Amino acid sequence: MDNRPIGVFDSGVGGLTVAREIMRQLPGENMIYFGDTARVPYGSKSKDTIIKYSRQIVRFLLTKNVKAIVVACNTATALALKELQKENTIPVIGVIEPGAITAAKTTETKNIGVVATESTIKSGMYTTFLRELDPQITVVSKACPLFCPLVEEGWTDDRVTDEVIARYLHELKDYEIDSLILGCTHYPLLRSAIGRYMGEGVKLVNPAYETAKSLRVLLEEQQLLNTQTDRGHYTYFVSDGVDNFVAFADRVLPCEVKLTSIVNIESY
Amino acid sequence: MDNRPIGVFDSGVGGLTVAREIMRQLPGENMIYFGDTARVPYGSKSKDTIIKYSRQIVRFLLTKNVKAIVVACNTATALALKELQKENTIPVIGVIEPGAITAAKTTETKNIGVVATESTIKSGMYTTFLRELDPQITVVSKACPLFCPLVEEGWTDDRVTDEVIARYLHELKDYEIDSLILGCTHYPLLRSAIGRYMGEGVKLVNPAYETAKSLRVLLEEQQLLNTQTDRGHYTYFVSDGVDNFVAFADRVLPCEVKLTSIVNIESY
Repeated sequence: MDNRPIGVFDSGVGGLTVAREIMRQLPGENMIYFGDTARVPYGSKSKDTIIKYSRQIVRFLLTKNVKAIVVACNTATALALKELQKENTIPVIGVIEPGAITAAKTTETKNIGVVATESTIKSGMYTTFLRELDPQITVVSKACPLFCPLVEEGWTDDRVTDEVIARYLHELKDYEIDSLILGCTHYPLLRSAIGRYMGEGVKLVNPAYETAKSLRVLLEEQQLLNTQTDRGHYTYFVSDGVDNFVAFADRVLPCEVKLTSIVNIESY
Repeated sequence: MDNRPIGVFDSGVGGLTVAREIMRQLPGENMIYFGDTARVPYGSKSKDTIIKYSRQIVRFLLTKNVKAIVVACNTATALALKELQKENTIPVIGVIEPGAITAAKTTETKNIGVVATESTIKSGMYTTFLRELDPQITVVSKACPLFCPLVEEGWTDDRVTDEVIARYLHELKDYEIDSLILGCTHYPLLRSAIGRYMGEGVKLVNPAYETAKSLRVLLEEQQLLNTQTDRGHYTYFVSDGVDNFVAFADRVLPCEVKLTSIVNIESY
Protein backbone atom coordinates (compact mmCIF):
# COMPACT_ATOMS: atom_id res chain seq x y z
CA MET A 1 0.00 0.00 0.00
CA ASP A 2 1.59 3.20 -1.22
CA ASN A 3 -0.40 6.38 -0.70
CA ARG A 4 1.96 8.73 -2.52
CA PRO A 5 0.17 10.49 -5.39
CA ILE A 6 0.49 9.83 -9.10
CA GLY A 7 1.79 12.80 -11.08
CA VAL A 8 -0.06 13.49 -14.32
CA PHE A 9 0.88 16.28 -16.69
CA ASP A 10 -0.16 17.77 -19.99
CA SER A 11 0.39 20.92 -22.00
CA GLY A 12 -2.95 22.19 -20.74
CA VAL A 13 -6.42 20.81 -20.24
CA GLY A 14 -6.39 17.85 -22.66
CA GLY A 15 -4.69 15.52 -20.18
CA LEU A 16 -7.78 15.74 -18.01
CA THR A 17 -9.29 13.05 -20.25
CA VAL A 18 -6.44 10.80 -19.02
CA ALA A 19 -6.92 11.95 -15.41
CA ARG A 20 -10.62 11.07 -15.77
CA GLU A 21 -9.80 7.50 -16.83
CA ILE A 22 -7.36 7.11 -13.93
CA MET A 23 -10.07 8.33 -11.53
CA ARG A 24 -12.44 5.71 -12.98
CA GLN A 25 -10.08 2.75 -13.10
CA LEU A 26 -7.97 3.52 -10.01
CA PRO A 27 -10.42 5.32 -7.71
CA GLY A 28 -8.27 4.99 -4.58
CA GLU A 29 -5.20 6.71 -6.05
CA ASN A 30 -4.27 10.25 -5.10
CA MET A 31 -3.32 12.43 -8.03
CA ILE A 32 -1.40 15.65 -8.71
CA TYR A 33 -2.31 17.12 -12.11
CA PHE A 34 -0.19 19.77 -13.78
CA GLY A 35 -1.43 21.63 -16.88
CA ASP A 36 1.13 23.85 -18.62
CA THR A 37 -1.48 26.44 -19.59
CA ALA A 38 1.08 29.26 -19.89
CA ARG A 39 2.91 27.47 -22.69
CA VAL A 40 0.12 25.51 -24.36
CA PRO A 41 -0.06 24.27 -27.13
CA TYR A 42 2.85 21.86 -27.39
CA GLY A 43 1.64 20.48 -30.74
CA SER A 44 3.43 23.05 -32.88
CA LYS A 45 6.67 23.28 -30.88
CA SER A 46 10.09 21.67 -31.42
CA LYS A 47 11.54 18.62 -29.72
CA ASP A 48 14.14 20.60 -27.74
CA THR A 49 11.49 22.91 -26.36
CA ILE A 50 9.16 20.06 -25.40
CA ILE A 51 11.98 18.22 -23.62
CA LYS A 52 12.91 21.35 -21.69
CA TYR A 53 9.30 22.00 -20.66
CA SER A 54 8.72 18.36 -19.67
CA ARG A 55 11.85 18.28 -17.52
CA GLN A 56 10.71 21.39 -15.64
CA ILE A 57 7.33 19.81 -14.98
CA VAL A 58 8.85 16.54 -13.79
CA ARG A 59 11.10 18.47 -11.39
CA PHE A 60 7.98 20.21 -10.06
CA LEU A 61 6.06 16.94 -9.67
CA LEU A 62 8.99 15.34 -7.82
CA THR A 63 8.71 18.06 -5.17
CA LYS A 64 5.22 16.64 -4.54
CA ASN A 65 6.63 13.19 -3.76
CA VAL A 66 4.90 11.39 -6.64
CA LYS A 67 5.38 7.61 -6.99
CA ALA A 68 4.88 7.48 -10.76
CA ILE A 69 4.42 9.97 -13.58
CA VAL A 70 1.97 9.81 -16.47
CA VAL A 71 2.88 11.97 -19.44
CA ALA A 72 -0.75 12.64 -20.39
CA CYS A 73 0.14 14.45 -23.60
CA ASN A 74 0.83 12.77 -26.91
CA THR A 75 3.27 15.43 -28.05
CA ALA A 76 5.33 15.27 -24.85
CA THR A 77 5.22 11.47 -24.99
CA ALA A 78 6.39 11.45 -28.60
CA LEU A 79 9.20 13.93 -28.05
CA ALA A 80 10.30 13.64 -24.42
CA LEU A 81 9.24 10.29 -22.87
CA LYS A 82 12.52 8.47 -23.55
CA GLU A 83 14.60 11.21 -21.95
CA LEU A 84 12.30 11.38 -18.92
CA GLN A 85 12.47 7.61 -18.44
CA LYS A 86 16.27 7.65 -18.61
CA GLU A 87 16.61 10.49 -16.13
CA ASN A 88 14.19 9.33 -13.43
CA THR A 89 14.13 6.40 -11.04
CA ILE A 90 10.34 6.33 -10.55
CA PRO A 91 8.24 4.86 -13.40
CA VAL A 92 7.26 7.29 -16.16
CA ILE A 93 4.65 6.17 -18.69
CA GLY A 94 3.29 7.87 -21.77
CA VAL A 95 0.04 7.74 -23.70
CA ILE A 96 1.31 6.40 -27.02
CA GLU A 97 2.42 2.83 -26.28
CA PRO A 98 -0.81 1.65 -24.59
CA GLY A 99 -3.07 2.83 -27.43
CA ALA A 100 -0.71 1.51 -30.09
CA ILE A 101 -0.62 -1.95 -28.50
CA THR A 102 -4.42 -2.11 -28.40
CA ALA A 103 -4.73 -0.97 -32.02
CA ALA A 104 -2.12 -3.50 -33.17
CA LYS A 105 -3.96 -6.28 -31.33
CA THR A 106 -7.40 -5.46 -32.71
CA THR A 107 -6.72 -4.59 -36.35
CA GLU A 108 -7.61 -7.25 -38.91
CA THR A 109 -6.97 -5.30 -42.09
CA LYS A 110 -3.52 -4.28 -40.72
CA ASN A 111 -4.32 -0.71 -41.71
CA ILE A 112 -4.38 1.65 -38.73
CA GLY A 113 -5.23 5.34 -38.82
CA VAL A 114 -3.69 7.89 -36.45
CA VAL A 115 -4.99 11.43 -35.92
CA ALA A 116 -2.92 13.78 -33.76
CA THR A 117 -1.22 17.18 -33.58
CA GLU A 118 1.35 18.23 -36.12
CA SER A 119 4.31 17.55 -33.78
CA THR A 120 3.09 14.08 -32.85
CA ILE A 121 2.57 13.13 -36.49
CA LYS A 122 5.92 14.60 -37.54
CA SER A 123 7.70 12.69 -34.77
CA GLY A 124 6.61 9.47 -36.51
CA MET A 125 6.46 7.78 -33.13
CA TYR A 126 3.10 6.08 -33.63
CA THR A 127 4.26 4.68 -36.98
CA THR A 128 7.61 3.50 -35.61
CA PHE A 129 6.00 1.89 -32.61
CA LEU A 130 3.17 0.18 -34.53
CA ARG A 131 5.65 -1.20 -37.06
CA GLU A 132 7.83 -2.57 -34.27
CA LEU A 133 4.77 -4.36 -32.91
CA ASP A 134 3.89 -5.77 -36.31
CA PRO A 135 5.88 -4.98 -39.48
CA GLN A 136 2.80 -5.91 -41.56
CA ILE A 137 0.92 -2.86 -40.31
CA THR A 138 0.38 0.15 -42.55
CA VAL A 139 -0.12 3.42 -40.68
CA VAL A 140 -2.10 6.25 -42.23
CA SER A 141 -1.60 9.44 -40.22
CA LYS A 142 -3.18 12.84 -40.38
CA ALA A 143 -2.49 16.02 -38.39
CA CYS A 144 -5.71 17.81 -37.37
CA PRO A 145 -4.66 21.22 -35.99
CA LEU A 146 -8.21 22.57 -35.67
CA PHE A 147 -9.54 19.77 -33.47
CA CYS A 148 -8.05 21.15 -30.21
CA PRO A 149 -9.35 24.71 -30.59
CA LEU A 150 -12.78 23.33 -31.55
CA VAL A 151 -12.87 21.17 -28.42
CA GLU A 152 -11.70 24.06 -26.24
CA GLU A 153 -14.43 26.24 -27.74
CA GLY A 154 -16.89 23.55 -26.64
CA TRP A 155 -18.11 22.82 -30.18
CA THR A 156 -17.91 19.06 -29.78
CA ASP A 157 -21.34 18.39 -31.23
CA ASP A 158 -21.58 20.96 -33.96
CA ARG A 159 -22.05 21.26 -37.70
CA VAL A 160 -18.79 23.19 -38.10
CA THR A 161 -16.86 20.47 -36.30
CA ASP A 162 -18.54 17.79 -38.43
CA GLU A 163 -17.38 19.63 -41.54
CA VAL A 164 -13.81 19.97 -40.22
CA ILE A 165 -13.79 16.26 -39.33
CA ALA A 166 -14.91 15.39 -42.87
CA ARG A 167 -12.23 17.66 -44.33
CA TYR A 168 -9.41 16.08 -42.33
CA LEU A 169 -10.56 12.48 -42.34
CA HIS A 170 -11.89 11.91 -45.85
CA GLU A 171 -8.41 10.81 -47.01
CA LEU A 172 -8.44 8.07 -44.40
CA LYS A 173 -11.48 6.56 -46.06
CA ASP A 174 -9.38 5.67 -49.12
CA TYR A 175 -7.52 3.14 -46.97
CA GLU A 176 -9.10 0.06 -45.51
CA ILE A 177 -8.44 1.09 -41.90
CA ASP A 178 -10.37 -0.68 -39.16
CA SER A 179 -8.76 1.11 -36.17
CA LEU A 180 -8.29 4.80 -35.64
CA ILE A 181 -6.10 5.99 -32.77
CA LEU A 182 -7.28 9.29 -31.26
CA GLY A 183 -3.71 10.43 -30.76
CA CYS A 184 -4.28 13.69 -28.89
CA THR A 185 -5.84 13.90 -25.45
CA HIS A 186 -8.49 16.36 -26.65
CA TYR A 187 -9.79 14.04 -29.33
CA PRO A 188 -11.76 11.59 -27.15
CA LEU A 189 -14.15 14.52 -26.63
CA LEU A 190 -14.84 14.35 -30.39
CA ARG A 191 -15.35 10.61 -30.18
CA SER A 192 -19.05 10.62 -31.11
CA ALA A 193 -18.61 12.98 -34.05
CA ILE A 194 -15.55 11.14 -35.38
CA GLY A 195 -17.33 7.81 -34.91
CA ARG A 196 -20.35 9.02 -36.88
CA TYR A 197 -18.12 10.09 -39.74
CA MET A 198 -15.88 7.02 -39.85
CA GLY A 199 -18.75 4.54 -39.43
CA GLU A 200 -19.18 1.36 -37.43
CA GLY A 201 -16.44 -0.55 -39.24
CA VAL A 202 -13.72 1.56 -37.63
CA LYS A 203 -12.85 1.00 -33.97
CA LEU A 204 -11.79 4.21 -32.24
CA VAL A 205 -8.89 3.66 -29.84
CA ASN A 206 -8.84 6.01 -26.85
CA PRO A 207 -5.28 6.17 -25.50
CA ALA A 208 -6.54 7.73 -22.25
CA TYR A 209 -8.47 4.55 -21.43
CA GLU A 210 -5.60 2.27 -22.44
CA THR A 211 -3.07 4.34 -20.48
CA ALA A 212 -5.07 4.08 -17.25
CA LYS A 213 -5.23 0.28 -17.79
CA SER A 214 -1.45 0.12 -18.28
CA LEU A 215 -0.92 2.26 -15.21
CA ARG A 216 -2.94 -0.17 -13.10
CA VAL A 217 -0.86 -3.12 -14.30
CA LEU A 218 2.37 -1.24 -13.65
CA LEU A 219 1.37 -0.20 -10.12
CA GLU A 220 0.32 -3.76 -9.34
CA GLU A 221 3.59 -5.22 -10.66
CA GLN A 222 5.71 -2.78 -8.73
CA GLN A 223 3.54 -3.02 -5.61
CA LEU A 224 2.80 0.66 -5.70
CA LEU A 225 -1.01 0.44 -5.59
CA ASN A 226 -2.97 2.53 -3.13
CA THR A 227 -5.52 0.06 -1.84
CA GLN A 228 -7.53 2.49 0.28
CA THR A 229 -11.29 2.23 -0.17
CA ASP A 230 -11.90 5.99 0.03
CA ARG A 231 -11.77 8.00 -3.17
CA GLY A 232 -8.33 9.56 -3.75
CA HIS A 233 -7.50 13.23 -3.34
CA TYR A 234 -6.89 15.28 -6.46
CA THR A 235 -4.81 18.44 -6.59
CA TYR A 236 -4.47 20.64 -9.67
CA PHE A 237 -1.70 23.00 -10.67
CA VAL A 238 -1.44 25.16 -13.78
CA SER A 239 1.17 27.58 -15.08
CA ASP A 240 -1.42 30.25 -15.94
CA GLY A 241 -5.09 31.23 -16.02
CA VAL A 242 -7.02 29.18 -13.49
CA ASP A 243 -10.50 30.22 -14.75
CA ASN A 244 -10.34 28.64 -18.20
CA PHE A 245 -8.82 25.52 -16.71
CA VAL A 246 -11.56 25.09 -14.13
CA ALA A 247 -14.29 25.72 -16.73
CA PHE A 248 -12.87 23.00 -18.97
CA ALA A 249 -12.27 20.62 -16.06
CA ASP A 250 -15.88 20.97 -14.98
CA ARG A 251 -16.96 19.78 -18.45
CA VAL A 252 -14.63 16.77 -18.44
CA LEU A 253 -14.24 15.47 -14.89
CA PRO A 254 -16.80 13.55 -12.82
CA CYS A 255 -15.95 15.60 -9.72
CA GLU A 256 -15.71 19.28 -8.90
CA VAL A 257 -12.32 20.97 -9.26
CA LYS A 258 -12.04 22.97 -6.08
CA LEU A 259 -8.56 24.28 -5.65
CA THR A 260 -6.21 25.08 -8.50
CA SER A 261 -2.89 26.83 -7.89
CA ILE A 262 -0.57 28.65 -10.26
CA VAL A 263 3.03 27.49 -10.44
CA ASN A 264 5.90 29.52 -11.92
CA ILE A 265 7.03 26.52 -13.95
CA GLU A 266 9.97 28.27 -15.60
CA SER A 267 11.71 28.41 -12.22
CA TYR A 268 11.92 24.58 -12.03
CA MET B 1 18.68 60.13 -40.73
CA ASP B 2 18.73 57.25 -38.27
CA ASN B 3 19.53 53.83 -39.69
CA ARG B 4 18.98 51.84 -36.52
CA PRO B 5 16.29 49.19 -37.00
CA ILE B 6 12.72 49.21 -35.75
CA GLY B 7 11.92 46.34 -33.39
CA VAL B 8 8.60 44.62 -34.05
CA PHE B 9 7.29 41.76 -31.94
CA ASP B 10 4.32 39.48 -31.69
CA SER B 11 3.34 36.24 -29.97
CA GLY B 12 4.03 34.44 -33.24
CA VAL B 13 3.32 34.97 -36.90
CA GLY B 14 0.33 37.34 -36.72
CA GLY B 15 2.47 40.45 -36.28
CA LEU B 16 3.83 39.86 -39.77
CA THR B 17 0.70 41.64 -41.05
CA VAL B 18 1.98 44.70 -39.16
CA ALA B 19 5.53 44.17 -40.45
CA ARG B 20 4.09 44.02 -43.97
CA GLU B 21 2.41 47.41 -43.58
CA ILE B 22 5.63 48.94 -42.19
CA MET B 23 7.51 47.55 -45.23
CA ARG B 24 4.93 49.17 -47.51
CA GLN B 25 4.67 52.54 -45.83
CA LEU B 26 8.26 52.91 -44.60
CA PRO B 27 10.27 51.03 -47.23
CA GLY B 28 13.64 52.45 -46.21
CA GLU B 29 13.43 51.31 -42.58
CA ASN B 30 15.43 48.36 -41.30
CA MET B 31 13.45 45.99 -39.14
CA ILE B 32 14.07 43.28 -36.53
CA TYR B 33 11.03 41.03 -36.12
CA PHE B 34 10.64 38.73 -33.13
CA GLY B 35 7.88 36.07 -33.04
CA ASP B 36 7.42 34.27 -29.72
CA THR B 37 6.51 30.99 -31.40
CA ALA B 38 7.54 28.90 -28.37
CA ARG B 39 4.91 30.53 -26.18
CA VAL B 40 2.19 31.37 -28.67
CA PRO B 41 -0.75 32.00 -28.29
CA TYR B 42 -0.88 34.96 -25.92
CA GLY B 43 -4.65 35.34 -26.35
CA SER B 44 -5.60 32.96 -23.55
CA LYS B 45 -2.89 33.91 -21.04
CA SER B 46 -2.97 36.18 -17.98
CA LYS B 47 -1.77 39.77 -17.69
CA ASP B 48 1.21 38.90 -15.47
CA THR B 49 2.43 36.30 -17.92
CA ILE B 50 2.06 38.61 -20.92
CA ILE B 51 3.95 41.39 -19.14
CA LYS B 52 6.76 39.01 -18.23
CA TYR B 53 7.03 37.69 -21.80
CA SER B 54 6.90 41.18 -23.32
CA ARG B 55 9.67 42.45 -21.04
CA GLN B 56 11.92 39.56 -22.07
CA ILE B 57 11.33 40.33 -25.74
CA VAL B 58 12.00 44.05 -25.27
CA ARG B 59 15.28 43.21 -23.50
CA PHE B 60 16.21 41.04 -26.48
CA LEU B 61 15.30 43.74 -29.02
CA LEU B 62 17.35 46.33 -27.12
CA THR B 63 20.43 44.17 -27.64
CA LYS B 64 19.83 44.76 -31.37
CA ASN B 65 20.04 48.54 -30.93
CA VAL B 66 16.48 49.29 -32.03
CA LYS B 67 15.35 52.93 -32.20
CA ALA B 68 11.65 52.23 -31.60
CA ILE B 69 9.50 49.22 -30.73
CA VAL B 70 6.16 48.23 -32.22
CA VAL B 71 4.13 45.84 -30.08
CA ALA B 72 2.53 44.12 -33.08
CA CYS B 73 0.16 42.01 -30.98
CA ASN B 74 -3.18 43.17 -29.67
CA THR B 75 -3.00 41.04 -26.54
CA ALA B 76 0.47 42.31 -25.58
CA THR B 77 -0.64 45.87 -26.37
CA ALA B 78 -3.74 45.50 -24.21
CA LEU B 79 -1.94 43.95 -21.27
CA ALA B 80 1.67 45.19 -21.34
CA LEU B 81 2.04 48.39 -23.43
CA LYS B 82 1.73 50.81 -20.51
CA GLU B 83 4.43 49.02 -18.51
CA LEU B 84 6.75 48.84 -21.51
CA GLN B 85 6.31 52.56 -22.21
CA LYS B 86 7.09 53.45 -18.59
CA GLU B 87 10.19 51.28 -18.47
CA ASN B 88 11.85 52.29 -21.74
CA THR B 89 13.35 55.51 -23.05
CA ILE B 90 12.88 54.72 -26.76
CA PRO B 91 9.34 55.08 -28.17
CA VAL B 92 7.10 51.99 -27.82
CA ILE B 93 3.83 51.94 -29.75
CA GLY B 94 1.03 49.41 -29.80
CA VAL B 95 -1.61 48.35 -32.30
CA ILE B 96 -4.74 49.34 -30.39
CA GLU B 97 -4.65 53.14 -30.24
CA PRO B 98 -4.14 53.79 -33.99
CA GLY B 99 -7.06 51.57 -35.06
CA ALA B 100 -9.30 52.91 -32.31
CA ILE B 101 -8.66 56.52 -33.35
CA THR B 102 -9.53 55.74 -36.98
CA ALA B 103 -12.71 53.91 -35.98
CA ALA B 104 -13.79 56.75 -33.68
CA LYS B 105 -13.20 59.27 -36.47
CA THR B 106 -15.12 57.38 -39.13
CA THR B 107 -18.15 56.04 -37.26
CA GLU B 108 -21.42 57.88 -37.86
CA THR B 109 -23.76 55.59 -35.96
CA LYS B 110 -21.39 55.72 -32.94
CA ASN B 111 -21.63 51.97 -32.73
CA ILE B 112 -18.27 50.25 -33.21
CA GLY B 113 -17.64 46.52 -33.29
CA VAL B 114 -14.42 44.90 -32.04
CA VAL B 115 -13.36 41.34 -32.76
CA ALA B 116 -10.25 40.02 -31.00
CA THR B 117 -8.84 37.23 -28.82
CA GLU B 118 -10.33 36.40 -25.47
CA SER B 119 -7.60 38.24 -23.50
CA THR B 120 -7.86 41.40 -25.58
CA ILE B 121 -11.65 41.50 -25.18
CA LYS B 122 -11.44 40.73 -21.45
CA SER B 123 -8.89 43.50 -20.96
CA GLY B 124 -11.59 45.97 -22.06
CA MET B 125 -8.87 48.16 -23.51
CA TYR B 126 -10.58 48.85 -26.84
CA THR B 127 -13.77 49.85 -25.04
CA THR B 128 -11.96 52.07 -22.53
CA PHE B 129 -9.96 53.76 -25.22
CA LEU B 130 -12.86 54.33 -27.63
CA ARG B 131 -14.98 55.79 -24.83
CA GLU B 132 -12.17 58.15 -23.86
CA LEU B 133 -12.08 59.34 -27.46
CA ASP B 134 -15.84 59.83 -27.55
CA PRO B 135 -18.12 58.99 -24.62
CA GLN B 136 -21.06 58.69 -27.08
CA ILE B 137 -19.57 55.57 -28.63
CA THR B 138 -21.07 52.17 -27.91
CA VAL B 139 -18.63 49.27 -28.31
CA VAL B 140 -19.85 45.79 -29.17
CA SER B 141 -17.06 43.26 -28.70
CA LYS B 142 -16.77 39.60 -29.49
CA ALA B 143 -13.94 37.12 -28.82
CA CYS B 144 -13.32 34.82 -31.79
CA PRO B 145 -10.92 32.09 -30.58
CA LEU B 146 -11.15 29.99 -33.75
CA PHE B 147 -10.11 32.73 -36.17
CA CYS B 148 -6.35 32.39 -35.46
CA PRO B 149 -6.13 28.62 -35.90
CA LEU B 150 -8.22 28.90 -39.09
CA VAL B 151 -5.84 31.52 -40.49
CA GLU B 152 -2.79 29.47 -39.49
CA GLU B 153 -4.31 26.44 -41.19
CA GLY B 154 -4.55 28.59 -44.35
CA TRP B 155 -8.34 28.31 -44.58
CA THR B 156 -8.84 32.01 -45.22
CA ASP B 157 -11.20 31.52 -48.14
CA ASP B 158 -13.18 28.50 -47.08
CA ARG B 159 -16.75 27.39 -46.39
CA VAL B 160 -15.84 26.30 -42.84
CA THR B 161 -14.36 29.71 -42.08
CA ASP B 162 -17.42 31.44 -43.53
CA GLU B 163 -19.61 29.40 -41.19
CA VAL B 164 -17.43 30.21 -38.16
CA ILE B 165 -17.50 33.90 -39.10
CA ALA B 166 -21.30 33.81 -39.28
CA ARG B 167 -21.46 32.03 -35.92
CA TYR B 168 -19.29 34.61 -34.15
CA LEU B 169 -20.48 37.75 -35.91
CA HIS B 170 -24.23 37.30 -36.24
CA GLU B 171 -24.76 39.00 -32.84
CA LEU B 172 -22.98 42.08 -34.16
CA LYS B 173 -25.66 42.45 -36.82
CA ASP B 174 -28.23 43.26 -34.12
CA TYR B 175 -26.40 46.53 -33.47
CA GLU B 176 -26.16 49.31 -35.96
CA ILE B 177 -22.36 49.18 -36.19
CA ASP B 178 -20.70 50.90 -39.14
CA SER B 179 -17.07 50.17 -38.16
CA LEU B 180 -15.54 46.87 -37.18
CA ILE B 181 -12.02 46.81 -35.74
CA LEU B 182 -10.09 43.66 -36.68
CA GLY B 183 -8.46 43.56 -33.25
CA CYS B 184 -6.05 40.66 -33.71
CA THR B 185 -3.15 40.71 -36.14
CA HIS B 186 -4.30 37.50 -37.81
CA TYR B 187 -7.70 38.88 -38.68
CA PRO B 188 -6.74 41.12 -41.63
CA LEU B 189 -6.11 37.85 -43.48
CA LEU B 190 -9.84 37.14 -43.06
CA ARG B 191 -10.70 40.61 -44.30
CA SER B 192 -12.46 39.49 -47.50
CA ALA B 193 -14.52 36.82 -45.78
CA ILE B 194 -15.50 39.07 -42.87
CA GLY B 195 -16.30 41.89 -45.31
CA ARG B 196 -18.59 39.62 -47.34
CA TYR B 197 -20.46 38.62 -44.21
CA MET B 198 -20.78 42.09 -42.66
CA GLY B 199 -21.71 43.80 -45.93
CA GLU B 200 -20.71 47.09 -47.51
CA GLY B 201 -22.22 49.26 -44.77
CA VAL B 202 -19.52 48.23 -42.29
CA LYS B 203 -16.02 49.65 -42.66
CA LEU B 204 -13.34 47.19 -41.56
CA VAL B 205 -10.54 48.88 -39.64
CA ASN B 206 -7.14 47.21 -40.03
CA PRO B 207 -4.96 48.19 -37.05
CA ALA B 208 -1.83 46.99 -38.89
CA TYR B 209 -2.31 49.67 -41.55
CA GLU B 210 -3.13 52.38 -39.00
CA THR B 211 -0.17 51.42 -36.80
CA ALA B 212 2.31 51.76 -39.67
CA LYS B 213 0.82 55.21 -40.39
CA SER B 214 1.24 56.24 -36.72
CA LEU B 215 4.78 54.90 -36.71
CA ARG B 216 5.66 57.10 -39.69
CA VAL B 217 4.31 60.20 -37.94
CA LEU B 218 6.16 59.32 -34.74
CA LEU B 219 9.49 58.76 -36.53
CA GLU B 220 9.08 62.03 -38.41
CA GLU B 221 8.28 63.98 -35.25
CA GLN B 222 11.21 62.56 -33.34
CA GLN B 223 13.55 62.83 -36.33
CA LEU B 224 14.20 59.11 -36.32
CA LEU B 225 13.33 58.39 -39.97
CA ASN B 226 15.68 56.39 -42.12
CA THR B 227 15.65 58.33 -45.37
CA GLN B 228 17.76 55.91 -47.41
CA THR B 229 16.36 55.15 -50.86
CA ASP B 230 17.33 51.45 -50.78
CA ARG B 231 14.86 48.98 -49.33
CA GLY B 232 15.52 48.27 -45.64
CA HIS B 233 17.02 45.06 -44.28
CA TYR B 234 14.75 42.70 -42.40
CA THR B 235 15.92 40.17 -39.82
CA TYR B 236 13.66 37.60 -38.19
CA PHE B 237 13.97 35.86 -34.84
CA VAL B 238 11.65 33.30 -33.29
CA SER B 239 11.66 31.41 -30.01
CA ASP B 240 10.89 28.08 -31.68
CA GLY B 241 10.18 26.20 -34.90
CA VAL B 242 11.56 28.14 -37.86
CA ASP B 243 9.80 26.04 -40.54
CA ASN B 244 6.21 26.95 -39.70
CA PHE B 245 7.21 30.57 -39.28
CA VAL B 246 8.85 30.76 -42.70
CA ALA B 247 5.91 29.01 -44.38
CA PHE B 248 3.48 31.53 -42.90
CA ALA B 249 5.78 34.49 -43.64
CA ASP B 250 6.00 33.44 -47.27
CA ARG B 251 2.20 33.68 -47.49
CA VAL B 252 2.02 37.11 -45.88
CA LEU B 253 5.13 39.10 -46.79
CA PRO B 254 5.97 40.67 -50.15
CA CYS B 255 9.60 39.51 -49.88
CA GLU B 256 11.33 36.23 -49.21
CA VAL B 257 12.22 35.39 -45.60
CA LYS B 258 15.78 34.13 -45.91
CA LEU B 259 17.34 33.84 -42.50
CA THR B 260 15.42 33.15 -39.31
CA SER B 261 17.24 32.43 -36.06
CA ILE B 262 16.02 30.84 -32.85
CA VAL B 263 16.44 32.82 -29.62
CA ASN B 264 16.25 31.33 -26.13
CA ILE B 265 13.89 34.07 -25.03
CA GLU B 266 13.48 32.84 -21.46
CA SER B 267 17.11 33.78 -20.79
CA TYR B 268 16.41 37.50 -21.39
